[in-house]
Amino acid sequence: MTTPSPISWTAEHAVRVLDQTLLPDQERHLVLDSVEAVAEAIETLRVRGAPLIGIAAAMGVVQATAAGGLPAVHEAITRLGATRPTAVNLRWALDRMARRAERVGDAAGLRAALIDEATRIHEEDRDMCRRIGEAGLALLPAGGVVLTHCNAGALATGGIGTALAPLYLAAERGRPVHAIATETRPLLQGSRLTAWELQRAGIPCTLNTDNMVASRLRLGGIACVIVGADRIAANGDAANKIGTYGIALAAKVHGIPFFVAAPSSTVDLSLADGSAIPIEERAPSEVTGYRDRRAAPEGVGVWNPAFDVTPAELIAAFVTDRGVIPPAELAARLA
Amino acid sequence: MTTPSPISWTAEHAVRVLDQTLLPDQERHLVLDSVEAVAEAIETLRVRGAPLIGIAAAMGVVQATAAGGLPAVHEAITRLGATRPTAVNLRWALDRMARRAERVGDAAGLRAALIDEATRIHEEDRDMCRRIGEAGLALLPAGGVVLTHCNAGALATGGIGTALAPLYLAAERGRPVHAIATETRPLLQGSRLTAWELQRAGIPCTLNTDNMVASRLRLGGIACVIVGADRIAANGDAANKIGTYGIALAAKVHGIPFFVAAPSSTVDLSLADGSAIPIEERAPSEVTGYRDRRAAPEGVGVWNPAFDVTPAELIAAFVTDRGVIPPAELAARLA
Repeated sequence: MTTPSPISWTAEHAVRVLDQTLLPDQERHLVLDSVEAVAEAIETLRVRGAPLIGIAAAMGVVQATAAGGLPAVHEAITRLGATRPTAVNLRWALDRMARRAERVGDAAGLRAALIDEATRIHEEDRDMCRRIGEAGLALLPAGGVVLTHCNAGALATGGIGTALAPLYLAAERGRPVHAIATETRPLLQGSRLTAWELQRAGIPCTLNTDNMVASRLRLGGIACVIVGADRIAANGDAANKIGTYGIALAAKVHGIPFFVAAPSSTVDLSLADGSAIPIEERAPSEVTGYRDRRAAPEGVGVWNPAFDVTPAELIAAFVTDRGVIPPAELAARLA
Repeated sequence: MTTPSPISWTAEHAVRVLDQTLLPDQERHLVLDSVEAVAEAIETLRVRGAPLIGIAAAMGVVQATAAGGLPAVHEAITRLGATRPTAVNLRWALDRMARRAERVGDAAGLRAALIDEATRIHEEDRDMCRRIGEAGLALLPAGGVVLTHCNAGALATGGIGTALAPLYLAAERGRPVHAIATETRPLLQGSRLTAWELQRAGIPCTLNTDNMVASRLRLGGIACVIVGADRIAANGDAANKIGTYGIALAAKVHGIPFFVAAPSSTVDLSLADGSAIPIEERAPSEVTGYRDRRAAPEGVGVWNPAFDVTPAELIAAFVTDRGVIPPAELAARLA
């Protein structure tokens, strides 16, 4: 089984990333050796997916230490923390980097310590993905068809993904699985990224437009829906890619279990419910075009929230590195 | 108020159509003077929208009479009837043309009679659109925001549309209205056509991707959803553009009235319920890209139904040329 590695260190500890905006047409890597270059890559979604954003930001902080000391590190954390508002993993990873930087006694050890911390964040994420996969695999019937949204796969993480991890483990063990991927407008992470990485791994995948989901769930034969998350509130309300809420509604109507797969770092116990999760709104041009082809008249109004919040009552369980957790037990189990 | 005219006769009674596949980039008209050219235009969606397909097919039958007689007319009806399976208006219009052809005594009068019948079908549709608009306008609160899907506007009919007709009448009478248009993947009839024709008419329009609908309905301030239909069964189950069913589910959950606007010719009393409505499946290439831009890896599986069926229980009422009709009264009122 082959999954792509969207991020790694270069020999000099610059950040090497796969430019995800170019997939599936081109598989091109970029070397980012400044804080600003990493911030730009996150803002423009060359690097995306909540867990991967956290890893990239941590590795981005290291770039500040090539020439600067602790003040440069703090500046980097501020800059990187402002790139995207919704995914809490970004904040979580940057807080770890800040704490580690503060613990370093001598300026000489700063760079090595931060390289170590960022490497740990990456490796821990890889391990969490596998644990999420194990927990999720137990929920999948043999030969089960899984519907997923956006991309919560290897391209969104430091390992084998969150929502897609159970599928990769099933394939690894010779269990047949089949994925249904939504294309996920406006930026097409489903058709561009999920279909691409599943195809590389030899996992059968059928692509649907987003507006086919309700009909597909009604048609039958779907074992469950599994999606990722960008931030989960203490009560189990979960922010994820725009469209997730509509899928959850349709899954409920058709009696299909709806699971949210995420590392425990995605849970933000400081928020009582989803109403406090900041939802990023992105540029209208993402909606008025399809890649570089305009599809709407000039000047049309646009609403372009990048995420929505699915209420806890529509979520059967969270599939986490600490096991399968019902929404009502989330706060107690992760406290 | 300016609405586009997607179809008309030339002086020689060839069919002049606006090529809707090129909108909004180019406003180009085609002259179709053979049955095959009209059939091709319907199959490739240069001409689309259930009422307009019926009108185009009727005008297409006339093209058989330039050189042929009754056998050529029957051949034309067979060819045109095979272009698209879901919209019943196509069948309804061709049946009218066939009956009119059979009633003509002398071969000499055939062409004139069929031109007259096709012209009547067009003119009656124009009148029906206005009656649908009047019926729908009574349902709209002042300043109301209406969410619509796909294009059931002037570009889909011989007049001011079905779902959009109440908006045009409101604008005509100086009542403020605002439309929310879904982009309607895969062929983007919402962003390419609905946004375009509303903008030309000066009606404010906000564009959403299809997967934003549930969140938009939850956000509030939407007076109602109004969509068109391609075929309505006797019990009120309604086939319309793929995605309609998911919108109807979300509207129900949020307590927003969901209306289906259509001429009475869209009702097929021969079908007890929606399960018997044939649903056209179209080419995978529509889903894997947009125009010449691919967005999915080669060889990915695709499911591409062009329509779905919304069950009658999700429909508040039908907005028709015979008034506003609840699903339960449909069969009795139109029998």
